[in-house]
Amino acid sequence: MKIVILGCGRVGSTIASVMSREGHDVTIIDQNADAFRRLSSDFSGKTIVGNGIDEDTLRRAELDRADAFVAVTNGDNRNIMSVQLAKVRFKVPKVVARIYDPIRAAAYAELGIETVCTTCVGAGLIRDKVLGREFSTFEEYLRLGITNASMEGEHERR
Amino acid sequence: MKIVILGCGRVGSTIASVMSREGHDVTIIDQNADAFRRLSSDFSGKTIVGNGIDEDTLRRAELDRADAFVAVTNGDNRNIMSVQLAKVRFKVPKVVARIYDPIRAAAYAELGIETVCTTCVGAGLIRDKVLGREFSTFEEYLRLGITNASMEGEHERR
Repeated sequence: MKIVILGCGRVGSTIASVMSREGHDVTIIDQNADAFRRLSSDFSGKTIVGNGIDEDTLRRAELDRADAFVAVTNGDNRNIMSVQLAKVRFKVPKVVARIYDPIRAAAYAELGIETVCTTCVGAGLIRDKVLGREFSTFEEYLRLGITNASMEGEHERR
Repeated sequence: MKIVILGCGRVGSTIASVMSREGHDVTIIDQNADAFRRLSSDFSGKTIVGNGIDEDTLRRAELDRADAFVAVTNGDNRNIMSVQLAKVRFKVPKVVARIYDPIRAAAYAELGIETVCTTCVGAGLIRDKVLGREFSTFEEYLRLGITNASMEGEHERR
């Protein structure tokens, strides 16, 4: 599979390293060349310095030929914008965005954009560890976060 | 259950809000009073402004009477230091630290400190979404992160 990843932070570099080792054709983009040192030493994919919300960078990453695009920068807005571009302009069949804000994650999921809300999953896992419970499913953790966020009057939206 | 949470970011505020709603006695600590606006409007626990690695703050949170302590600040070191304090000085029966670095998470887990590595879980969930696979267990995602990190020569350690 040809996969393009935007954001070489901890999560992006882990996905890139693991999928490269699994034999996939991986290209990873980051604004900051220093970020690429997080990649494992056996990473055999391509690295591109650039901004993921301009078409030029995405074209250099040959996004038009990609099977999948993943956006895992630290900005929810940037992740959402880039997956929209990937889906609409580059017709990438599979796009996934990491979203911190549970309400946004749910809203975009309804629009057909697959999202992974790490806030919900982290909070759910820790609660269950504290209570000594079995871990729930990912879907249940997502609901936990949404229920909480929708009850918050002052929920932060960046 | 009486639970003390250090760090009122997205994950900390979600755990605090959900567990308060579930009827637990929740105290949450953050260095920055502004962070408490992330709590849901029906949060009925206590908030304390302070640093979680000094004993005075932890004493104000009545950590000596707590059943559980959770450290979810943005710093791995701070989380580890505070759970050690909670365990050794305050004899808290259950402590959990959120750790970004997979190698550290595994090392501390071996020392009996329960850790949740959100990097591993996030990377694993996204990889499986991209590949259209069933989600794995959280234990498998943890191993994925560790395997990757231990193969990285230049893995970042903050």
